[in-house]
Amino acid sequence: MNKAVDVFLRIRNSKFFNTLVILIIIASAIYAGISSYNLPEHYLNSLKIFDYVITIFFVFEIVIRIVSEKSFGRFFRDGWNVFDFIIVFLSLIPVGAGSTIFVARLLRIIRVLRIITVVPAFRKIIDSLIMSLPRVGFVALLLFIFTYIFAVIGTMLFADADALKWGNVGRALLTLAQVATFDDWGAIMGIVLQTNPFAWIYFIFFIIINAVILLNMVIGVIVDVMISENSKTSITEKNINKYENQDKS
Amino acid sequence: MNKAVDVFLRIRNSKFFNTLVILIIIASAIYAGISSYNLPEHYLNSLKIFDYVITIFFVFEIVIRIVSEKSFGRFFRDGWNVFDFIIVFLSLIPVGAGSTIFVARLLRIIRVLRIITVVPAFRKIIDSLIMSLPRVGFVALLLFIFTYIFAVIGTMLFADADALKWGNVGRALLTLAQVATFDDWGAIMGIVLQTNPFAWIYFIFFIIINAVILLNMVIGVIVDVMISENSKTSITEKNINKYENQDKS
Amino acid sequence: MNKAVDVFLRIRNSKFFNTLVILIIIASAIYAGISSYNLPEHYLNSLKIFDYVITIFFVFEIVIRIVSEKSFGRFFRDGWNVFDFIIVFLSLIPVGAGSTIFVARLLRIIRVLRIITVVPAFRKIIDSLIMSLPRVGFVALLLFIFTYIFAVIGTMLFADADALKWGNVGRALLTLAQVATFDDWGAIMGIVLQTNPFAWIYFIFFIIINAVILLNMVIGVIVDVMISENSKTSITEKNINKYENQDKS
Amino acid sequence: MNKAVDVFLRIRNSKFFNTLVILIIIASAIYAGISSYNLPEHYLNSLKIFDYVITIFFVFEIVIRIVSEKSFGRFFRDGWNVFDFIIVFLSLIPVGAGSTIFVARLLRIIRVLRIITVVPAFRKIIDSLIMSLPRVGFVALLLFIFTYIFAVIGTMLFADADALKWGNVGRALLTLAQVATFDDWGAIMGIVLQTNPFAWIYFIFFIIINAVILLNMVIGVIVDVMISENSKTSITEKNINKYENQDKS
Repeated sequence: MNKAVDVFLRIRNSKFFNTLVILIIIASAIYAGISSYNLPEHYLNSLKIFDYVITIFFVFEIVIRIVSEKSFGRFFRDGWNVFDFIIVFLSLIPVGAGSTIFVARLLRIIRVLRIITVVPAFRKIIDSLIMSLPRVGFVALLLFIFTYIFAVIGTMLFADADALKWGNVGRALLTLAQVATFDDWGAIMGIVLQTNPFAWIYFIFFIIINAVILLNMVIGVIVDVMISENSKTSITEKNINKYENQDKS
Repeated sequence: MNKAVDVFLRIRNSKFFNTLVILIIIASAIYAGISSYNLPEHYLNSLKIFDYVITIFFVFEIVIRIVSEKSFGRFFRDGWNVFDFIIVFLSLIPVGAGSTIFVARLLRIIRVLRIITVVPAFRKIIDSLIMSLPRVGFVALLLFIFTYIFAVIGTMLFADADALKWGNVGRALLTLAQVATFDDWGAIMGIVLQTNPFAWIYFIFFIIINAVILLNMVIGVIVDVMISENSKTSITEKNINKYENQDKS
Repeated sequence: MNKAVDVFLRIRNSKFFNTLVILIIIASAIYAGISSYNLPEHYLNSLKIFDYVITIFFVFEIVIRIVSEKSFGRFFRDGWNVFDFIIVFLSLIPVGAGSTIFVARLLRIIRVLRIITVVPAFRKIIDSLIMSLPRVGFVALLLFIFTYIFAVIGTMLFADADALKWGNVGRALLTLAQVATFDDWGAIMGIVLQTNPFAWIYFIFFIIINAVILLNMVIGVIVDVMISENSKTSITEKNINKYENQDKS
Repeated sequence: MNKAVDVFLRIRNSKFFNTLVILIIIASAIYAGISSYNLPEHYLNSLKIFDYVITIFFVFEIVIRIVSEKSFGRFFRDGWNVFDFIIVFLSLIPVGAGSTIFVARLLRIIRVLRIITVVPAFRKIIDSLIMSLPRVGFVALLLFIFTYIFAVIGTMLFADADALKWGNVGRALLTLAQVATFDDWGAIMGIVLQTNPFAWIYFIFFIIINAVILLNMVIGVIVDVMISENSKTSITEKNINKYENQDKS
């Protein structure tokens, strides 16, 4: 038994195996892309076989990784492993009619995300993204609160002038998301400006508040990352200084 | 009497009370949002009762906070407290007909801003925003002056070609706000380009000046924040060094 | 004579005089803005008188500043003084018919720029802008070269499909300026995509090159400013360290 | 022979020669631009002669640079030299009919890129661009993977509602590039919102993921550049400190 684990471990750690997994994931991504085109019948059949091969390979790969970890518990301690397992497990459920086809296709494309698990550089980027989330999160929440308040005021002011854009708070929020990204806001303002000559105050005010909060967020994240990097360096420098001082004494 | 103050203070500082206040504010925000939809009569009535409950709770909460501060003077020294008090006080004025309904609804949504007073993380963000205002303010003023000069020149050049966009300095300012945010500026330029073949110089020049000043502002704020953070760190480091040196001697 | 210079110098340096100049400049800006509206005859006449008052005041002010500098040579050594003098001098030339009215109105609005000379905070911003120009300038030039090359290729590829946007290199440059600012580029691409199915390669490539160069420019300026600020601080710190070391010995 | 090399070397290093090369490149750029206008016959003929002169000059210039390097091997060790040689060599191939005219015109404009080889400031910018590519590259790849997954999901959800924008994965990718640059995304969403009332979740989600990853990339590059610049400075500072310490002892 132990020998088998050893073999599996060596397979998992081999460069060839990792490259193969990456290639299979890329192939499955291309396959999901090609499926969106209108293809003749016989192509679709060979694609179906290709899909089975990929699914079987992914099952095979996850078994190797579970066995090489020696225990189920250890394997599932890593969030990405859990993610991998769920994706592979769900793709094994036989596809029925109707909405299940949609779910099956969704799984087929979502499993491309497994590339993050496999390529360390991607994992690192995602990790640093998650690290900056708390800072981004609170500012984003504040931004949402301001946008929400503006949306409610927008429904009160412009619902009669342009019901499609400002009819209720949901529509107003989407409209403000458009204004916040500067997409066609001139036209959106133009419509309500005809009945509310002072509507421009609302728009200019919203754009400025929005830009100032976003700018603050970006700067906050930059400074945060900088300081954490700086403290890393200065700790290293300190250690170097220590060693140098020890050398002297 | 003192005992009551003590009880109120304990209530104000309790985690449960703070969470309750946050939840009530969120509920009042959702309530303001729902009001924007066309709802059947009986729903509106129950919403009205819900609104009364929120208003009463806010009065109750502000009384607790005033009492626990022991004196009116102390309570009103904090700008946010003044803001809270005005909002709650105004929402007590009975709603009349016509425009007062609008004001009442406006107050109902503006009181959602009270979430900033209650959640410390939001207060901190707003504080840092206010800190960066002087630097942003002067650059924004300069940007406005340049935009204003361009707006007046715009009315002189393009008022005949496109009166809706360049008819007077007010309209020209709004049009330039649109150009500054890159919203549909190609189309705006296209119209005046038919009568003024050199109008593109005006637009390209405005966009470049605008972008350079904005870039300068962003960089200025980043560097400002960085330096203030740096000086904080180096002061700390110095103190650490001092203590280390004291240890040695 | 010397006494008069002394009085003029005291006037020039007085807070009251500076505030007055700022107010007059703001008044002249508002006047230029109001002129863009269609006003009844008698208003226009009173505005004309107001314009004369401003012009006379500006002459008076520049005389004070020249006299208080004691010599013409010294006064004209500062570029901003030269700018002020030219603006005031030109606005003295009597307004004739036709295009001279346009020039007179142009001068009237351009003299608002004099606010930069008067408010030190604005001067500082402009100075820092000019400081960052060399770095920005070369990258902007490189960006222009790339855009120019793309424009020529654009005329070769798309002139037949959309002559209005790609007919010659001038139009293509304006179209690419629009694409670079993400304004309606989807529609611009959509037209040429009908005859050139691979036109998207051209657009995606241009947008990516453009974004990468711009990003590089922004980062370059940030790092430049940062390092120059850093070296200032470290020199100061060094000096502090020196003095501290001297204290010890 | 050696004397000729010496003369050639002196020519290559002379300021006059470098300025001449830059001027000829600019002239060739202007020439390529003018060619895009509809010109009368006799102008085109004189332009053709001008083109021959430029081509001959470029051959002459590259010969000087090869000879002054003394050996072919040394000359081709520099990537930019290889680029220069290929461009000049290809422009010597006689122009035939049809598509070759297109290729000849393409070469004519691409040889403007040679200005990067000649002006050191441009070379430096390109070098620093290439240096930041690895960091940018991986994040851009991750961004593409996310966009691709969204594109496939988009074809599944919206292909029926708007075949032109979401008909297959290629079109969906272009549409998402438009959404990512905030170009007209409100209208794109508006169409699919009519059949899929929850389509806004897809768009808002995509825009947020997109913005967060891009922000992370920008910050990453800023921090990277900063640290590398910082380490350069601190190494220099260290050396200075060393020398100062040596002076004392």
